[in-house]
Amino acid sequence: MEIHLNGFHDGNPEIYPPAGEDKLYSPEMPDELDVLIVGSGPAGLNLAAQLSQFPEIKTRIAERKDGPMLRGQADGVSCRSMEMFNAFGFVEKAAKEGHWVNETCFWQPDPENPENPEQIVRAGRVQDVEDDLSEMPHIILNQARVHDFYLEVMRNSPTRLDVDYQYQLQILEIDTGESAYPVTATFAHQGQTKTVRAKYVVGCDGARSAVRTAIGRELKGDYAYQSWGVMDILMTTDFPDIRHKNIIKSAAAGNILIIPREGGHLVRLYVELDKLSERGGSKGVSLEHIIDTASRIFSPYQIDVKEVAWWSVYEIGHSLTDKFDDVPATDINHRLPHVFIAGDACHTHSAKAGQGMNVSMGDSFNLGWKLISVLTGRCPPELLHSYSAERQAVAQDLIDFDHEWSRAMSKPPEDSDDTTPLIQKHFVAGGEFTAGLRVTYPPSSITSSSDWQHLATGQPVGNRFHSAPVIRLSDARPMQLGDTIKIDTRWHIYAFAGSGDPAATDSGIYKLCTFLANDKNSPVLKHTPEGADIDSVISVYGIFQQSHQALDFEAM
Amino acid sequence: MEIHLNGFHDGNPEIYPPAGEDKLYSPEMPDELDVLIVGSGPAGLNLAAQLSQFPEIKTRIAERKDGPMLRGQADGVSCRSMEMFNAFGFVEKAAKEGHWVNETCFWQPDPENPENPEQIVRAGRVQDVEDDLSEMPHIILNQARVHDFYLEVMRNSPTRLDVDYQYQLQILEIDTGESAYPVTATFAHQGQTKTVRAKYVVGCDGARSAVRTAIGRELKGDYAYQSWGVMDILMTTDFPDIRHKNIIKSAAAGNILIIPREGGHLVRLYVELDKLSERGGSKGVSLEHIIDTASRIFSPYQIDVKEVAWWSVYEIGHSLTDKFDDVPATDINHRLPHVFIAGDACHTHSAKAGQGMNVSMGDSFNLGWKLISVLTGRCPPELLHSYSAERQAVAQDLIDFDHEWSRAMSKPPEDSDDTTPLIQKHFVAGGEFTAGLRVTYPPSSITSSSDWQHLATGQPVGNRFHSAPVIRLSDARPMQLGDTIKIDTRWHIYAFAGSGDPAATDSGIYKLCTFLANDKNSPVLKHTPEGADIDSVISVYGIFQQSHQALDFEAM
Repeated sequence: MEIHLNGFHDGNPEIYPPAGEDKLYSPEMPDELDVLIVGSGPAGLNLAAQLSQFPEIKTRIAERKDGPMLRGQADGVSCRSMEMFNAFGFVEKAAKEGHWVNETCFWQPDPENPENPEQIVRAGRVQDVEDDLSEMPHIILNQARVHDFYLEVMRNSPTRLDVDYQYQLQILEIDTGESAYPVTATFAHQGQTKTVRAKYVVGCDGARSAVRTAIGRELKGDYAYQSWGVMDILMTTDFPDIRHKNIIKSAAAGNILIIPREGGHLVRLYVELDKLSERGGSKGVSLEHIIDTASRIFSPYQIDVKEVAWWSVYEIGHSLTDKFDDVPATDINHRLPHVFIAGDACHTHSAKAGQGMNVSMGDSFNLGWKLISVLTGRCPPELLHSYSAERQAVAQDLIDFDHEWSRAMSKPPEDSDDTTPLIQKHFVAGGEFTAGLRVTYPPSSITSSSDWQHLATGQPVGNRFHSAPVIRLSDARPMQLGDTIKIDTRWHIYAFAGSGDPAATDSGIYKLCTFLANDKNSPVLKHTPEGADIDSVISVYGIFQQSHQALDFEAM
Repeated sequence: MEIHLNGFHDGNPEIYPPAGEDKLYSPEMPDELDVLIVGSGPAGLNLAAQLSQFPEIKTRIAERKDGPMLRGQADGVSCRSMEMFNAFGFVEKAAKEGHWVNETCFWQPDPENPENPEQIVRAGRVQDVEDDLSEMPHIILNQARVHDFYLEVMRNSPTRLDVDYQYQLQILEIDTGESAYPVTATFAHQGQTKTVRAKYVVGCDGARSAVRTAIGRELKGDYAYQSWGVMDILMTTDFPDIRHKNIIKSAAAGNILIIPREGGHLVRLYVELDKLSERGGSKGVSLEHIIDTASRIFSPYQIDVKEVAWWSVYEIGHSLTDKFDDVPATDINHRLPHVFIAGDACHTHSAKAGQGMNVSMGDSFNLGWKLISVLTGRCPPELLHSYSAERQAVAQDLIDFDHEWSRAMSKPPEDSDDTTPLIQKHFVAGGEFTAGLRVTYPPSSITSSSDWQHLATGQPVGNRFHSAPVIRLSDARPMQLGDTIKIDTRWHIYAFAGSGDPAATDSGIYKLCTFLANDKNSPVLKHTPEGADIDSVISVYGIFQQSHQALDFEAM
């Protein structure tokens, strides 16, 4: 028996009561949809999981593959993504299964042993996530499990949303007129053709995105003529830091990035291979070559590879589209977007900064609440322009960062009197970026200018809300402020009270609450529909400086 | 892709690969079993979940009801039970769903308002669980959800164990001779008779236990002639501490215990009703009477009951059997136990100390590893005598504690110059007991005498292992020492090293490790079968005083 505000029901409280029959997922793909998502990778599933909570929005997610991913290649989950997982309600599962990256170690030739430059020593060790950067750890967890968590949220949602497999997008057409369902998508499905009309289509269909092609956008990029090998292996070794993240720079054999994997035994090695004279020049590189190169870099430590779960060779490249929706930059003022792209469909980069899956999920997390707010009538559709504006800039930052990081990774270890490796300095300087926490959205209709920054000195305007440990007044429960954020698309007012008695009628918090509760300009009163719960659109939290025992709950 | 020592498999790592066909649960009840559990309450499921991990042990759990419990009445989960849930791997689910009891408040007539003795005020407030008592919180969670968690562990186990419903025990016979399957149980099942022979039978079949009756034991007890009403309700109230645990003692209207429930809205009230002149005298008490009494006790605060999820009236009694197995005390030296009883089958008491479910699960947690160790040949069957010896004493302590607590709860508020309510002093003094942490097993073949206590000053001999926060050396992961304990029935050696260099050959830890690794008297070498992993029977952990950065992993 789980107990809710409006009654009691049995069983797992994370399984919502199902919506009405016509709002539930059914095997037959409907002809008309509010939102059609193409692609069920991290970006597509993140978006679908958000939309699945709203039975009034008709959503489907189409995937060309035959079924869910069993083994993926992405594995880095940043602190920011973990914060997002908390909003979805599965962060504790990810934290339990994942490998926690707590420290990163830096190895290079021993300056005190110049006779044997091929022998590496540990030159530095840093905390992977700086104190108070986030309440969440940085973890490593296979992409397939992240998919599983989103799928579970969808299947437990009021709409019981699931993925439609074996739908290959063929044609996508946009009617720029006044049609209620302006986008028409034609799929090949099990030998048949299926046509769907939608209000919005979101292409989360990867680097070869058919949606991107349909809206006439291109991935434009550059190319570094450098190949890397990557392998997930079981091995025995006397290298002491094998359960840490490591960057090894050898004198002449090249560089390695070590990422320990979940489960306690497997490890991923990124091994720098040869400079290339032409694109595709890494073709034909063998697993043995990668292992041999790795063995030389590890010297004087031994590695004995017992089993290879997966391996691949890739060449470094970066690419980006100039805009993430179907509206040309010149038409923004008189045309609304109806097709969006997210994730690898609009940006690709190297894997070693561990950003791919995270930035892709960040894209559709940004788009999700906007689509929901527009489709439920809470926000005007012009809001949707902000998706491309905000996320294209984030992707550009990522590519700039990744360029810099790739160059730093490939540089040979430097001679220097400074004992801290240069790569370690790079790493520390980029820590906030890598954690996903250096995203700052520019001023817009939803983000204020920095003119108001002095009112919230600890919370940079345009950044994600930074959590902090608090004690809940009603039941003295220790929790994180960030725990109040769920994927319910509500707005939040966090009121940080002054040090005085909050019950005093001249205190700021008293005056704010009076305004919010009674004034005709109160956003809470203005935006909450009549009859709805007072916190259903905007929830208000007060944060007090006093200890919870010192506050008089009754007087407040 | 989850990655394990011996390979990789897809999906949820908590779902174990299934054992061979003949070791898997199948709908047909076998004729011969190693362990037959009767009853699928907290004690039975706790035991079944442990045994389900061992495919070499043939276990079934028979239940007379038609299906799993949907709404249970027990709800208190002590810190000790949460530690146990951690060993089962579901503590994070319980912590997420449950209501955390963080503080307990004490209300009584206002001494500064003697004109209005019927008006209560908060007289005290204490932290519910003292600092460092346990790494786990005290929570409130419906018994049915605790059942669900155990069932999930069973269904994900290598044996895929499930409950056999609609099995009503009719006859239980014990052959005290040399039979390999000395216990014969006869069930009525869907109009048929089914006979099962078992090596061991465990009665977890509640206060009216048929297993207890079959071994000729009785619940003997006493009776307090005091009735209480209990109800799970939704209400609106201006009582400020309604989301805290509270004990209210009114001047003349009686006493209330408030337990907030999971989900954020429901609350359980235990309301003291009338003294009784005879057993069963509370028959006919109405819900209205309970609500009226509660309203008077809450004065000057208002309560407005909106919905009643469940209510009941009970009379206080305590009872206990003298022994928890089938061997008469006089026969211990020449007869081995084959039938055990656990939980309500051997002890009953009032609900208000929140101990019932906890002590029941503690019973079968104690029995589980012993049955497994005996059936897998690791321990001699004489070990099984220790179950009744250890747990009967625990139940006796519980009943003594509960007597005292019931008396304290029913006492009217006292006049005293001391402003701390007497009941608060009682509560604080009993905190360690209520948390399930004052269980001390006496010296036996498995518990040393206190002669060795000076070697482990922070860990009282005979108590549960007290956890502490540590950093794991291999990957710098912050964790709890208690996280190392799983339901795998391994033994553990925790070696707390001195402050010196652990790699020095004259350090205690160096010498211990050398002994354990090489000496012919090493328990690790003696008890680990040839070819098995070195930590498969006894795992060894070193705990160091230095920070993890100060320790040289390579030298160790």
